[in-house]
Amino acid sequence: MMKTTTRIFNFSAGPAVLPLPVLEQAERDLVSLPGVGMSILEVSHRSKVFEDVLARAEADIRTLAAIPPNYRVLFLPGGASLQFTMVPMNLLTDDRTADYLVTGVWAAKAVDEARKIGKVHVAATTKAEQFTRVPRPDEVVLSPDAAYVHMTANNTIYGTEWKELPNVGSVPLVSDTSSDMFSRPIDVSKHGLIYSGAQKNMGAAGVTVIIVRDDLLARSAATLPSMLSYAVHAENRSMYNTPPVFAIYLLGLVMRWLIGQGGLAAIARVNERKAAKLYSEIDRTGFYRGTAQKDSRSLMNVTFRLPSEALEQQFVKGAEQASLDGLKGHRSVGGIRASIYNAFPEEGVDALCSFMREFERRNG
Amino acid sequence: MMKTTTRIFNFSAGPAVLPLPVLEQAERDLVSLPGVGMSILEVSHRSKVFEDVLARAEADIRTLAAIPPNYRVLFLPGGASLQFTMVPMNLLTDDRTADYLVTGVWAAKAVDEARKIGKVHVAATTKAEQFTRVPRPDEVVLSPDAAYVHMTANNTIYGTEWKELPNVGSVPLVSDTSSDMFSRPIDVSKHGLIYSGAQKNMGAAGVTVIIVRDDLLARSAATLPSMLSYAVHAENRSMYNTPPVFAIYLLGLVMRWLIGQGGLAAIARVNERKAAKLYSEIDRTGFYRGTAQKDSRSLMNVTFRLPSEALEQQFVKGAEQASLDGLKGHRSVGGIRASIYNAFPEEGVDALCSFMREFERRNG
Repeated sequence: MMKTTTRIFNFSAGPAVLPLPVLEQAERDLVSLPGVGMSILEVSHRSKVFEDVLARAEADIRTLAAIPPNYRVLFLPGGASLQFTMVPMNLLTDDRTADYLVTGVWAAKAVDEARKIGKVHVAATTKAEQFTRVPRPDEVVLSPDAAYVHMTANNTIYGTEWKELPNVGSVPLVSDTSSDMFSRPIDVSKHGLIYSGAQKNMGAAGVTVIIVRDDLLARSAATLPSMLSYAVHAENRSMYNTPPVFAIYLLGLVMRWLIGQGGLAAIARVNERKAAKLYSEIDRTGFYRGTAQKDSRSLMNVTFRLPSEALEQQFVKGAEQASLDGLKGHRSVGGIRASIYNAFPEEGVDALCSFMREFERRNG
Repeated sequence: MMKTTTRIFNFSAGPAVLPLPVLEQAERDLVSLPGVGMSILEVSHRSKVFEDVLARAEADIRTLAAIPPNYRVLFLPGGASLQFTMVPMNLLTDDRTADYLVTGVWAAKAVDEARKIGKVHVAATTKAEQFTRVPRPDEVVLSPDAAYVHMTANNTIYGTEWKELPNVGSVPLVSDTSSDMFSRPIDVSKHGLIYSGAQKNMGAAGVTVIIVRDDLLARSAATLPSMLSYAVHAENRSMYNTPPVFAIYLLGLVMRWLIGQGGLAAIARVNERKAAKLYSEIDRTGFYRGTAQKDSRSLMNVTFRLPSEALEQQFVKGAEQASLDGLKGHRSVGGIRASIYNAFPEEGVDALCSFMREFERRNG
């Protein structure tokens, strides 16, 4: 069932599995880029080589999501966690309120950081239901003076995902898409700002992609620290300082691969099929129990429980022995989590389904 | 003269040349880490594999610089440029002044960012001499209420370097060592905080090493954004969020390599020898003219001029044809710059000296 004798199935929530052809390309460029005479790790960020890498990565991202021309694409360090701070620092003015849709731990962290910067309103939360679903449209109550509305597109810990964007009228929608970016088509024009740490669906840890509508850059005060200003980074085309060259290069390779897979609509069909197989196995007899409510189920992080914690431990251990790695749920909720991002191979899903069937037969 | 037929000599100021054995090791780990079954780019930051990488990198850094136990070692994103902001955010309180020693463009940028945070005093500057040297001890005038003194250990653009640390009494000394870190022994105990972007002497772009004295962590206010707080990163041992896994892994390989070279005293001897060869060639006849004053000459970035800009252009072009790359001086000052960091091979220095001798013969 395994692709090669040396690689296992990696269900980790992130950093996560990468497409094998991407790794093989990076391996080829690692000691000496053909025609350049040095490693991709050694090229100057001011070199023609890197200029081309950056331009192509941006162009491919624009192609994949059909990004309108009035949006900028930025490549920044610090992960989504730094965006929890940069979003309110740049977009929240003293006279306004930042609205947050709280659907889990990461959304709550974003709220905590925003509260250090300015006024925050929780416009909806499903905490009372242990974040087992995302809010319904009628549960979202915006502030009259909302500077923006912040959402978390997919919630890795709880295995939930927004199926439709919340209706926010003319207020800029800011979305943390770190865990489902480019796993399905995304309507950029309905957002003011999108940010995504690369290490789940876009590449390796070390770079975050920001897509921001032009007019919002005017909100970045000139008094902001340069490294924390979207306007400064946009003006310098992500080259205000030395960017994470290799992380951007690798992200570019993943974007190329994604285009080769047929783009977002095509990968979405694969992701739907992969997730459907797992959810169908979960729902088959009742031995396994999905933790997310059905209409909020994530296609990226499939979370479920077994009849007892003892069985869950046994399940994780047995899976590891079968080369199915990283299935332990997040330490805050326990249970099982299978993360099946874009690059996760379908045969790995099949392998997990078989393992689940067999495990149930022996323990059910 | 070239090490292999496919690699050239890379004199770039950073990102810069890496040790070939490090690149070859990374190449071997890129598709599947032996015994792990996945790429170093795919392992979870919570995995045992990465825990070991992080612990070993820290241990090796501690060994190399004999770091006292009351100092923390942190691995953070954002480069030295983000430290320009984090240093004053964390260490500068409202009732104090931050003292800066201004020795070039990067020091001046650090001042600009600190001024956005609090009160700044320029305690010495050699701007009047176009930064061709670092200040003398008697030129440094500290504030009576100095929160810290900030210096830039090596100035890449002007080719200057502090030969001795300035005397700052009991005021914490903060040093940006991005361009000469671990090129020579460093007395950590004389510093309050040291920061170094990795992409010159420590690894690839994407991670910054911070060495900070324990007691200074108490200055980080609880109201600081988490990602910008030294205290938060120290408490979480650089794992507050997903760190740049690959950049830390690569830095660890460079530290191993450096230990294998005999450590800081040994590499300093090599660096002195490499620089002496180049400066001696520069001083030989007067055709070339070193831009830094002799007692401030950098061992990392050797800057010089030719009799005319036309000859400089010809020099850079001819050098490129001879596989000597990246010799063009920084766009703000022009001229020639040969960056010869730890990993830059001595045979590359010899090749440049030969090229200089021949260029002078033809054009002198």
